[in-house]
Amino acid sequence: MPFDTPSSTTERPHVVIVGAGFAGLEAAKTLRDTPVRVTLVDRNNYHKFQPLLYEVAMAGLEPDDIAHNVRNIFQGNETVHFRLGTVTDVDPVRQQVHLRGSAPLSYDHLILAAGAVSTDFGIPGVEEHAYPLKNVPDAVNLRNRVLRQFERYDRQREAAGEGALTFVIVGGGPTGVEMAGALVELFDTLNDDFAEFDTREQARCILLEMEDYLLPPYERSLQTYTQRVLEGRGVDVRTGTAVERVDTDRVHLQESPPIPTQTLVWAAGVKASPVAGMVGTEQARDGRIVVNPDLSIPEHPTVYAVGDMAAIEGKDGYEPQLAQVAIQSGRHAATQIQRDLRNGTRESFEYWDLGQMATIGRNAAVAELGGGVSFKGVFAWFLWVVIHIAKLVGFRNRLSALVNWAYNYFTYNRSARLILDMVPIADDVPMEVEEVDQQVKERLKTVETQPR
Amino acid sequence: MPFDTPSSTTERPHVVIVGAGFAGLEAAKTLRDTPVRVTLVDRNNYHKFQPLLYEVAMAGLEPDDIAHNVRNIFQGNETVHFRLGTVTDVDPVRQQVHLRGSAPLSYDHLILAAGAVSTDFGIPGVEEHAYPLKNVPDAVNLRNRVLRQFERYDRQREAAGEGALTFVIVGGGPTGVEMAGALVELFDTLNDDFAEFDTREQARCILLEMEDYLLPPYERSLQTYTQRVLEGRGVDVRTGTAVERVDTDRVHLQESPPIPTQTLVWAAGVKASPVAGMVGTEQARDGRIVVNPDLSIPEHPTVYAVGDMAAIEGKDGYEPQLAQVAIQSGRHAATQIQRDLRNGTRESFEYWDLGQMATIGRNAAVAELGGGVSFKGVFAWFLWVVIHIAKLVGFRNRLSALVNWAYNYFTYNRSARLILDMVPIADDVPMEVEEVDQQVKERLKTVETQPR
Repeated sequence: MPFDTPSSTTERPHVVIVGAGFAGLEAAKTLRDTPVRVTLVDRNNYHKFQPLLYEVAMAGLEPDDIAHNVRNIFQGNETVHFRLGTVTDVDPVRQQVHLRGSAPLSYDHLILAAGAVSTDFGIPGVEEHAYPLKNVPDAVNLRNRVLRQFERYDRQREAAGEGALTFVIVGGGPTGVEMAGALVELFDTLNDDFAEFDTREQARCILLEMEDYLLPPYERSLQTYTQRVLEGRGVDVRTGTAVERVDTDRVHLQESPPIPTQTLVWAAGVKASPVAGMVGTEQARDGRIVVNPDLSIPEHPTVYAVGDMAAIEGKDGYEPQLAQVAIQSGRHAATQIQRDLRNGTRESFEYWDLGQMATIGRNAAVAELGGGVSFKGVFAWFLWVVIHIAKLVGFRNRLSALVNWAYNYFTYNRSARLILDMVPIADDVPMEVEEVDQQVKERLKTVETQPR
Repeated sequence: MPFDTPSSTTERPHVVIVGAGFAGLEAAKTLRDTPVRVTLVDRNNYHKFQPLLYEVAMAGLEPDDIAHNVRNIFQGNETVHFRLGTVTDVDPVRQQVHLRGSAPLSYDHLILAAGAVSTDFGIPGVEEHAYPLKNVPDAVNLRNRVLRQFERYDRQREAAGEGALTFVIVGGGPTGVEMAGALVELFDTLNDDFAEFDTREQARCILLEMEDYLLPPYERSLQTYTQRVLEGRGVDVRTGTAVERVDTDRVHLQESPPIPTQTLVWAAGVKASPVAGMVGTEQARDGRIVVNPDLSIPEHPTVYAVGDMAAIEGKDGYEPQLAQVAIQSGRHAATQIQRDLRNGTRESFEYWDLGQMATIGRNAAVAELGGGVSFKGVFAWFLWVVIHIAKLVGFRNRLSALVNWAYNYFTYNRSARLILDMVPIADDVPMEVEEVDQQVKERLKTVETQPR
């Protein structure tokens, strides 16, 4: 259906999309042939495939397998333009998005899709001592940490201290479960690396969940299956266990003795990106922007909030923060802009639940496909692998991920066991690129002259 | 031939090898079935395939394609043990190698193979402003820098400043030539990324060489061919040009006007690793340890220096710092240890020159195979690709590199265009792992709470 809008690119309405995650990317793709100008802003020049971050953390995949250059996705398209930048403020009255270090972007339509960040629920010590898992550098840092702990233990068992090889994962949702499953597989692989000790005897993986069952939103039979499989593979699963405080070398629990550990992974919860607080409208308890049924925000019909930073009213409270919700809501907001251009009326968003799935490790997964259909075991795992590879953005990532996975599967190896220190500068710090460069370079320089 | 030594592992003579580059790795491989105990020490837990570092810097390959976990290489072998550590001192009298943060290693035989580091020849500003290319983090930081310069120029052309897209490479040896060829190919790829300007018109690559010809050790016809090809592809080649001083935004030359540039790559020269200065024996001008004909060091017959940190007398002065010399000298030192164990006599090292090759980019390379046989053009390029893929350590790296290369070749794309900030902590700083962890983690933590 043709649009009644000017065809010259500069006269077209300007759509700004903040965030190139699932929601923002889908919105931009939906608008790629619409007579608008789209500016897609992200702090990183890549889209990350978040469901597989844990694989990077557990040395199964490489960062590049799950990250895809955004400009590459829109190569040759004249509508969508990428802008590397950090949003410092949103002004819905003047219709401007402020970026650090460059002039503000004026918009006709705005889609906020900045996602979620890790939250510590105010538990002391989490911020200082726990390892989050939201970004690519998080995953690489966790990978380095795990591998270094083994190197340290191998080098000086006594000095390594208590709990050097005890890895505690807090949060029994899909991320925690997937990470625990992958971690015990990594122990197996590392056992061939370290001749001096049996990693399967010395290393421990403890999974803590506050609720009484793992994977809270899944049906009971899948929850108990998941726990049984994890325990069978050596994970110490402790449900109904709440964290009170985290120290450098131990985690204190509310009703049981503390656990000595030097590596605590925080997979317990998220809150909306700080961008959600910049528009000055109502936020849910976890910071998400409460949106209208059409996903626009109250009083500003041309501003939408989608994905993990939007509180979207569903059948049972707000919709969950899942990739599917992000993709569908991103597409919905883009469609409303298309309807506005055609002078049409808005539509309410309805989430079409395609189900959910989580892998527990090699040959084991759980899947609920909606309508009471559920799978577990090898078939669910196979389904999980196929769907995740198919969804990885871009041909190259898919092929490379497939190569890595096939290699890991058949050789019982985990191919990405490299300690490569990464700083989350570009990912998290709202700095000018010049400052970033300078920081990294100074670091590089001061160390170059040191003795090897 | 059987050895006359005890078969119990702990009673075996202890061989310490410092450095898991080409030389150290080859020495360890040579000794893997010898009745000794080998401890292979490196600051990184991976071996890097240095000849392809420039491909990582130019977004053609990923770090993981050229880095291979060392423990993986010796999995299942009972002779060779890996130790992640930084050498702080070598005491050839007490026969000890000191490592930061752990007890010294006592050795019966020692092979020093710590390689080379970048040198600025005392030219002011190089240390502060130039980008070296010796380590994996160097390569990733350079990749980030190049990609960021384009993002910066795209965002604010004026503010980006003069020379924002002028990339100057200093050094017309193989590394400089290969990098220049890959960089202009990257310009082509990026042209599809940036719709607002023509990268091939705006971006410049200038290659500076002090001598009158590129690739100084090659025969004249290959030198002129190389220059012609590079110029045909848009590289501004300036031979006979020496650098006087480097500033933040320009490079000053000895006899011509300064060139405005914000990115200067230093591929002009190397000196021996600082480990070479720890043994207190004679060093050549570039810091390399002057070795005996059998590669042992004067007065300490059980200590060998090999690879890039050894000054090995050849037909025309010291042997060049090439992968082939490193591999052959590493193997030779290991063989001398085997001869000692058999109470045999030592042999002098003789370098068997297999020739040299350098790629100039897509479909163009030069190769000298010794005996006056030389190639240039497509066939030499094909030979280069086959040899380099075949030599990449480990099945997975090879396959993954092949996938990336094939993809780049057929699509004219460069697949690894990701800005992922990396710090060279583990690679260069002689710090305790605990300190490293703490530094990375603090960085991670301070930025987590910032607004996105």
